[in-house]
Amino acid sequence: MTLSKQIHLKTRPQGNPVAGDFDIVEVNIEDPAAGQVLVKNIYMSVDPYMRGRMRFAKPNELLIGGAVGKVVASNNPDFSEGDCVSNGSGWREYFLSDGSDLSKVDPSLAPLSAYLGVMGMPGLTAYGGLLVTGEMKDGETVFVSAASGAVGSVVGQIAKIKGGIAIGSAGSDDKVQQLTQEFGFDHAFNYKKADPLAELRRGAPDGIDIYFENVGGAQLEAALTHIKVNGRIPVCGMIAHYNDGDTLTAGPRNLTEMIYKFVQMKGFVVSAFEDMRGQFVTDMSGWISSGQMKYHETIHEGIDNAPGAFMGLFTGSNNGKMLVKLADD
Amino acid sequence: MTLSKQIHLKTRPQGNPVAGDFDIVEVNIEDPAAGQVLVKNIYMSVDPYMRGRMRFAKPNELLIGGAVGKVVASNNPDFSEGDCVSNGSGWREYFLSDGSDLSKVDPSLAPLSAYLGVMGMPGLTAYGGLLVTGEMKDGETVFVSAASGAVGSVVGQIAKIKGGIAIGSAGSDDKVQQLTQEFGFDHAFNYKKADPLAELRRGAPDGIDIYFENVGGAQLEAALTHIKVNGRIPVCGMIAHYNDGDTLTAGPRNLTEMIYKFVQMKGFVVSAFEDMRGQFVTDMSGWISSGQMKYHETIHEGIDNAPGAFMGLFTGSNNGKMLVKLADD
Repeated sequence: MTLSKQIHLKTRPQGNPVAGDFDIVEVNIEDPAAGQVLVKNIYMSVDPYMRGRMRFAKPNELLIGGAVGKVVASNNPDFSEGDCVSNGSGWREYFLSDGSDLSKVDPSLAPLSAYLGVMGMPGLTAYGGLLVTGEMKDGETVFVSAASGAVGSVVGQIAKIKGGIAIGSAGSDDKVQQLTQEFGFDHAFNYKKADPLAELRRGAPDGIDIYFENVGGAQLEAALTHIKVNGRIPVCGMIAHYNDGDTLTAGPRNLTEMIYKFVQMKGFVVSAFEDMRGQFVTDMSGWISSGQMKYHETIHEGIDNAPGAFMGLFTGSNNGKMLVKLADD
Repeated sequence: MTLSKQIHLKTRPQGNPVAGDFDIVEVNIEDPAAGQVLVKNIYMSVDPYMRGRMRFAKPNELLIGGAVGKVVASNNPDFSEGDCVSNGSGWREYFLSDGSDLSKVDPSLAPLSAYLGVMGMPGLTAYGGLLVTGEMKDGETVFVSAASGAVGSVVGQIAKIKGGIAIGSAGSDDKVQQLTQEFGFDHAFNYKKADPLAELRRGAPDGIDIYFENVGGAQLEAALTHIKVNGRIPVCGMIAHYNDGDTLTAGPRNLTEMIYKFVQMKGFVVSAFEDMRGQFVTDMSGWISSGQMKYHETIHEGIDNAPGAFMGLFTGSNNGKMLVKLADD
């Protein structure tokens, strides 16, 4: 029997999530039965997409999300104590599994926390979204919004690795500086201060080939105006719209730009790229080793701080992947 | 020397085009020099896309557009008097050509006017937009707005020919009745009276696979809400937005629907399908002969009425393809 804390969603958030929407609950986890393993989560992830799922949550629903942990007791021949596993059972300290929802990860290829970032869901989202959905060809010009985030910073760096030009936007001058100085973006701007269209014209006088969409709003409008013929807009997220209540924010006023420019917009989620995970892990661990792929993490300590970490996503308080550390490695 | 009337655009229209934006000019056309032919236009086309082009017109610019005519004098060995030719030199009664911009059409396959409709640009737009850009598979459910128009009515009929379900919207009860009773749509509604989402739910309880977009606005929002996973939205036009002035109308508030449903929106214009024109002419003339493809025309008489015919596109005064007859066959 193991005492474990977990986070429940008391009520569906109205607009921006607040602390009162969440509940911290202590439960007892049984010892593993035959075929089961007990996993102790080390890191859990908070991600903007979770906000969308909360629209449909039942009252007092246990939250879920990505996590990496260690097997601390095994009654399943496929797993040994000490195995590191990525899993979809975040927002809790311990859990039982029959193993079907666990994937072993190799801590020698990258630090454990990276499997929730560049080596995990956000990394694969960037990789598949840019190369498959966005159909990026070597040397193309890529604009990505929320560029200092876990997905956006990988998008820009892959664009550079593929010989392209990377333009990024972020919400503070510090993040903008980081984009050009650390992540190698060719041009970056603070979307809260600058006019996106003017910045795109400055950074890409001939137009952009791809807009990797994370935000919506004015940046999507600017991208539609400045995108080239046969441009592509992989739609990964529209965080500006996630906390809309019943009154939804209007969309771009210039969708007609799509017509004459043969623009393709396509929505996707990371599950579309599961079949290319092997190639992704090989490419990404190689890029990390060679120093071509950099990443940052913002780590909150302890499960009690998980709701706060999640809320921080919507105020831009993170720098790189937002994580919660639940236990020592 | 031949006296010919032609239509110039005096000034760029502000919002809806008005009669004062146009000018009727009489010019003398020389006899054909070596290599030239003189073409007498029989029918010319007015189309919504011309409004977009007018945003960029110079003062007093001669308008252009699709037309079919007859060679009345030839000094070019490739053309004989009496040859029927489709051309891009509408908005005028006569013109000289070196032949490079003329395509011979066969009046035995379909009436001459049909080469401006189902056998011409609108037909190929519907055919390529639905089957190539929209990637329609046999049996899928297709919603098309402006369904009684030259493009929309062909979209719905091809959907039926391909074993699918066709849902259409139009702006009057008469047109709605025509969709189901003449064109064989499974469900149709008057977008000025009915709630588009409720109508889509009624006509396609399981969702739509494709929304063939001609209109924008509330119908696009309803389509995004009711489209299935992996749905496609070929964007042919957004006529609701064409007469926007400096204050553009906002776009759909629910583009985020694209993300989780992997929706693909793609703009296109008919030039993308030039390489499939041979297959198109074969298919379409076969469908007309077998009675599977029906069409209507609204014909205005005389070039003086061309501006009025064009303006009528934006008030829905046409029933089927809007044409201007410039001379007898």
